[in-house]
Amino acid sequence: MQTTIDIAKLAEEVIARCRKLASFSEDTSGTRRTFLSAPMRDCHREIGRWLEPLGVNARVDAAGNLRAIYSAADPGAPRLLVGSHLDTVPNAGAFDGILGVVLAVALLQVQQGRKLPYGIEVVGFSDEEGVRFGTPFIGSRALVARLDEELLGQTDAQGVSVRKAIQDFGLNPCEIAQASLDEGALGFLEFHIEQGPVLEKLGKPLAVVEAIAGQSRLEVTFVGRANHAGTTPMDLRQDALAGAAEWITDVERIARTVAGLVATVGSVKVKPGATNVIAGEVRLSLDVRHRADDIRTRMVDELIRHGEQIAESRGLSMHQRVSLSQREVPMDPFLAGQVEEAIRRARCDPHRMVSGAGHDAMILAEKIPAAMIFLRTPGGISHNPMESVGVEDVAKAIECGIYLLDQLASSSKFQSRTCRA
Amino acid sequence: MQTTIDIAKLAEEVIARCRKLASFSEDTSGTRRTFLSAPMRDCHREIGRWLEPLGVNARVDAAGNLRAIYSAADPGAPRLLVGSHLDTVPNAGAFDGILGVVLAVALLQVQQGRKLPYGIEVVGFSDEEGVRFGTPFIGSRALVARLDEELLGQTDAQGVSVRKAIQDFGLNPCEIAQASLDEGALGFLEFHIEQGPVLEKLGKPLAVVEAIAGQSRLEVTFVGRANHAGTTPMDLRQDALAGAAEWITDVERIARTVAGLVATVGSVKVKPGATNVIAGEVRLSLDVRHRADDIRTRMVDELIRHGEQIAESRGLSMHQRVSLSQREVPMDPFLAGQVEEAIRRARCDPHRMVSGAGHDAMILAEKIPAAMIFLRTPGGISHNPMESVGVEDVAKAIECGIYLLDQLASSSKFQSRTCRA
Repeated sequence: MQTTIDIAKLAEEVIARCRKLASFSEDTSGTRRTFLSAPMRDCHREIGRWLEPLGVNARVDAAGNLRAIYSAADPGAPRLLVGSHLDTVPNAGAFDGILGVVLAVALLQVQQGRKLPYGIEVVGFSDEEGVRFGTPFIGSRALVARLDEELLGQTDAQGVSVRKAIQDFGLNPCEIAQASLDEGALGFLEFHIEQGPVLEKLGKPLAVVEAIAGQSRLEVTFVGRANHAGTTPMDLRQDALAGAAEWITDVERIARTVAGLVATVGSVKVKPGATNVIAGEVRLSLDVRHRADDIRTRMVDELIRHGEQIAESRGLSMHQRVSLSQREVPMDPFLAGQVEEAIRRARCDPHRMVSGAGHDAMILAEKIPAAMIFLRTPGGISHNPMESVGVEDVAKAIECGIYLLDQLASSSKFQSRTCRA
Repeated sequence: MQTTIDIAKLAEEVIARCRKLASFSEDTSGTRRTFLSAPMRDCHREIGRWLEPLGVNARVDAAGNLRAIYSAADPGAPRLLVGSHLDTVPNAGAFDGILGVVLAVALLQVQQGRKLPYGIEVVGFSDEEGVRFGTPFIGSRALVARLDEELLGQTDAQGVSVRKAIQDFGLNPCEIAQASLDEGALGFLEFHIEQGPVLEKLGKPLAVVEAIAGQSRLEVTFVGRANHAGTTPMDLRQDALAGAAEWITDVERIARTVAGLVATVGSVKVKPGATNVIAGEVRLSLDVRHRADDIRTRMVDELIRHGEQIAESRGLSMHQRVSLSQREVPMDPFLAGQVEEAIRRARCDPHRMVSGAGHDAMILAEKIPAAMIFLRTPGGISHNPMESVGVEDVAKAIECGIYLLDQLASSSKFQSRTCRA
């Protein structure tokens, strides 16, 4: 490796930087940083400070994504996008998404000013988790020209639309088209923690992702009748929460009967939500994933049918809205092969796997070749303040990244690709 | 009846005033007015405006209760308290609680300046529903000297304590002792909507309440482990929400097996509460009521035992906190008899009943004779924007109130009572 950088030290800095970004939060007691919330601005400013000494200017596009180009030897040459997302779930860990952005910055640091035959664009997506608007990938959708009028009109719990949130952040929703990929985009590379137990079980630090499993997300609503909890006899109730609870247990029971299927109700909102009032309305989230698209869609239909039967038997009504129906997305085979080789050169045994989690790479793959590298996740724990990553694994990821950039620099096949947009 | 007041017109004004107060809300889309929230100030100001032309000054005690004394012929004579609560549940109707305060003002209006041998104190309690702090009756507890240090230290969802909320409203928590009843308090009279279907089924406008059923309120928490919904297989989950849902269906099933028992889970709070995260913690409310105290407490124990079994079988933990355990409270037999007579004099057929809902009268009954008059509730609908009351029924309630005040004015037995405080 032709670098004078101390990679072990850089890996420590990467982890410290992730933890620093975790301190920019909407909540005082944990990390929550949703689409264009106030702490996102601090996050952008901090990353901008890291990029400045590298001679790289960070800007924020109209979808709130951080974009920073490290230009090629020839300033007109095309570029590789490297990054991940900067938003978090509520009560989040420090590495989901963030690590991929901080590692991208680290890969610029190791260049020490040297120029490659292609540029590198660091990308920090504004929304991947979908916490604020219930619809994920707002940031990466802008890059593939899918941040459309319908999505711009969606509102958060306070009735603020995506468009309004963009304006409130000081950005111009009319400029969203300019955030989309141009012909200079060669591909997308995303480092991400695995967020599952597979690599830990195998004792391997890194994996190359072959494909991302399909997923469905729905918002399901049970409607009954709010009434007084003390004066309404049990047999005269239309309790939306009792119906919803029956369905949640059904979702779990049914999901357990299908190998490889995961189905989750993670959010419940009860109206009016008081101790002494029977619930009039309950809104739930449903998240269903399976590698095989036909099994996933069939199971979503079956779960909804069960909900409708429960609602009918209780004098409730039920309705649902699909907020995401994402097919399985294969990663680019050429880039995956290059990643596999780079992992091997970093003296690791590469594992090939399917991601159970959705990632920005699956959105970018619509338009440009995309690749993902997973880092081992201790305990498989993610979306949790206990989420962590080993410093040695981060060092291996940096090494792998250096080798990969190097391989691509000497690959005419890679540099001749043009954006499919 | 010796009054020149048009009672039908006054009844209409009472309803209009209740609807006016419903417009003072924390929410733009419905009525929510919790303990010492900003709209409570508007509510106090509005009622103060109604009292002014009657020569009555309204003040707010240190627990945030509105207090306004219409003095007796002899200014040193003791007084009857008349009123109810001014706080609401979320998405509330216009009459629960509020009607009792507005009717108290109406009973001063019909006096047209005449003085009774006892004073009348209009009381508008600051909290009966317990929405903000999870513990109800904060207002009336102050009158029976039970707004203690422990309750003052309880915090709302934003971490604001009762004490801090009192200070933020511009009141002095050190003066709470001065809000408690003195020897001049003869008794408490509360008009309230029934909030159930009984009077409507019987075709009667008014009822006299014999007793208030006991109730238990608990906060129950299931703790599991938050994790990624896409990468955690079904059999490796500790899903707090799946456990909570199983318990909610159990609560309903078991409550249905015991005649006269109502058990309700009305509030569910999921942490972190995102579509793609398995729930790590779920906090639920449990409300259990039955006329017989022994049945109620036995059923609470049984429901908790079921929850513990569910938690154990799922690798979760469960804990609970009792926020209210209220025995059945009989109303004062003498006052109840007087109310029954007054209903009859208003040409109605009085019905005697037990209240399934808790009321401020049950707190006041600890220290002074207390009585309640129920008004028929169309459809039994309450805690709901569709909550209503018939104008003829309100007119009957005013008539009944006039007769009752008249009866008490000539009752030496009533006026010789002294506060049990």
